[in-house]
Amino acid sequence: MDRIQRLQKELEKTDTDYVIIGTTSNMFYLVGFSEEQMERPLLLFVTKDDYFMLVPKLYEEQLKQLPLIVYRDGEDPYSKLNLKENSNILIDDTTFSLFTIEILNRFKPRRLGKASVILRKLRQVKDDEEIEKMEKGVKKAEELLLEFVPDIKENMTECEIERKLKSFLIGEAGYISFDPIVTSGPNSSMPHLRCSDKKVKGGEVIVIDYGIKYEGYSTDTTRVFSLGRPNDTLALEIVEIVKSANEEAEKHVREGMRAKEIDDIARKVITDKGYGVYFIHRTGHGIGIDVHEDPYISPGNDDVIEQNMVFTIEPGIYLPGKFGIRIEDEVVVKKGYGKVLNTLQKELYIL
Amino acid sequence: MDRIQRLQKELEKTDTDYVIIGTTSNMFYLVGFSEEQMERPLLLFVTKDDYFMLVPKLYEEQLKQLPLIVYRDGEDPYSKLNLKENSNILIDDTTFSLFTIEILNRFKPRRLGKASVILRKLRQVKDDEEIEKMEKGVKKAEELLLEFVPDIKENMTECEIERKLKSFLIGEAGYISFDPIVTSGPNSSMPHLRCSDKKVKGGEVIVIDYGIKYEGYSTDTTRVFSLGRPNDTLALEIVEIVKSANEEAEKHVREGMRAKEIDDIARKVITDKGYGVYFIHRTGHGIGIDVHEDPYISPGNDDVIEQNMVFTIEPGIYLPGKFGIRIEDEVVVKKGYGKVLNTLQKELYIL
Repeated sequence: MDRIQRLQKELEKTDTDYVIIGTTSNMFYLVGFSEEQMERPLLLFVTKDDYFMLVPKLYEEQLKQLPLIVYRDGEDPYSKLNLKENSNILIDDTTFSLFTIEILNRFKPRRLGKASVILRKLRQVKDDEEIEKMEKGVKKAEELLLEFVPDIKENMTECEIERKLKSFLIGEAGYISFDPIVTSGPNSSMPHLRCSDKKVKGGEVIVIDYGIKYEGYSTDTTRVFSLGRPNDTLALEIVEIVKSANEEAEKHVREGMRAKEIDDIARKVITDKGYGVYFIHRTGHGIGIDVHEDPYISPGNDDVIEQNMVFTIEPGIYLPGKFGIRIEDEVVVKKGYGKVLNTLQKELYIL
Repeated sequence: MDRIQRLQKELEKTDTDYVIIGTTSNMFYLVGFSEEQMERPLLLFVTKDDYFMLVPKLYEEQLKQLPLIVYRDGEDPYSKLNLKENSNILIDDTTFSLFTIEILNRFKPRRLGKASVILRKLRQVKDDEEIEKMEKGVKKAEELLLEFVPDIKENMTECEIERKLKSFLIGEAGYISFDPIVTSGPNSSMPHLRCSDKKVKGGEVIVIDYGIKYEGYSTDTTRVFSLGRPNDTLALEIVEIVKSANEEAEKHVREGMRAKEIDDIARKVITDKGYGVYFIHRTGHGIGIDVHEDPYISPGNDDVIEQNMVFTIEPGIYLPGKFGIRIEDEVVVKKGYGKVLNTLQKELYIL
């Protein structure tokens, strides 16, 4: 059964009239087409028994194998649509708001909801082909990182390293799943700082969080490095704690448990060592076409872990003004247990 | 006057209660912060006399100089907000719909509109500092393209060339403004096809449409190439027509005219030669932080061209099954006239 049909089968159980999808990961998932989101509406409409796409004229030749409603630049795209008013519409979560606002104001739905309520069920459980791509992706990404890191030298800036890594990953893999994070010393205590003009010094903690796209699927891995031995021996202690948290959580992944229980396990290890207040984010997130997707391994999340889900386990400890440590793997649930896709060492790499 | 204040001054003229901005170009424009959009709300709220940001805990240290409302993973972010119901809200056009849908369903606004109705007025007219960055960006981008194109060899696939170009641009410039388009022969008649596994052959038309980000500002340029002389002499005739259309439009840019008039001028040149039906898109688009922004140089667009606007002029002719030709420059309106930022030749480059 193709993916549009699987979505339609789910729609049958609801009173949804339309699912509207932009040029996002959901469009790629449903019809295999990917494009950056832009200001021209390029939207897929799925109903219980039909689907069609609203596309600008300049995509017509490229998409001719699909059922198209075509408009030209200068025409009003929405006037080509014949959506019924007062309907129940689900909108693709990451589609740009301008389309949602037009739909809302033009077609007066009685309800607008997030398409993820249905699509997440389909996407969070991967099929074997998807898992194979993701396994290969992680392998490839790891090889590339090991090839890259010897090029990190003292006095390069974080952004210089980030740029070289990004250029290298794209040259070798074609696509990245997000702009890599390269932070060092005190900057590493900010988990989502991308990089700065700070120069990397010997003995500082360096955090690298990066991913590629492999046949459309994202990878996401974090490891920690140091040029020579770390100056601050506390860094090695913290690495040990984060590594234990990571491994404890991974070891206890079971089909049927709740996402929050995985978070609890990692968090308990860190809290027991007195660093709970410095673990300032969730333990992980699902991954697939998107680098972040369901299930989220968050405190309080009751989602049940199922066979063939893939998610990250990435506890961290962030000491403001000092450094931060995060160790991130991807885990797939197979035969009831968690199988870690990563093979890189979790200890700090001394470069 | 800072940009938040300029926005607030515009809000004074309206009955808008909140402008809500995601981690998009508008956030960069207003507060200088840029981040990829993700599932965690990281939103800027602007009212007539105040502003604040809703941010995940893991960004707190990084953004501490701004007025923050912080939530932790596992908490309900929206419960931290105290927005009044029945308000008039403008939402940032390219913010993910999931945030808009939450705002809609949680805070029951009486009206939801697009923030671009106000922000476009600010953003489409650049200040001198922005224009200087954009001029430097185009210069840099052109140098990089000329450095790159000698590496294009017969039998490389389009996607191989695309990947090498992307990797090179990122390595040299740090960021690209969009994934480059590299198409050849019959594929070049699809204006937004990115690339394929088709091998590039001698004598075929090759279209390269690419851009970098320079200090946060996008460039966007298209030129046409051929390995050796083109096999089809029609290609050279079509290049001449497209070049005339491009130059006629550029020459006639004037402060005070309407956007549609520029489109008309380019379109007339192509239509007079009998190819009007093959010019399947608008003549251009504004450019700045975003690669596509107001003003759109589209048929029927009554927007008035003002001093310090920057936009592209990019007519094209697409002959399905044969080839497509597009020539794209950036133009800034200065002293009442259009000043072309590009210097690359418009004739087909024989490599």
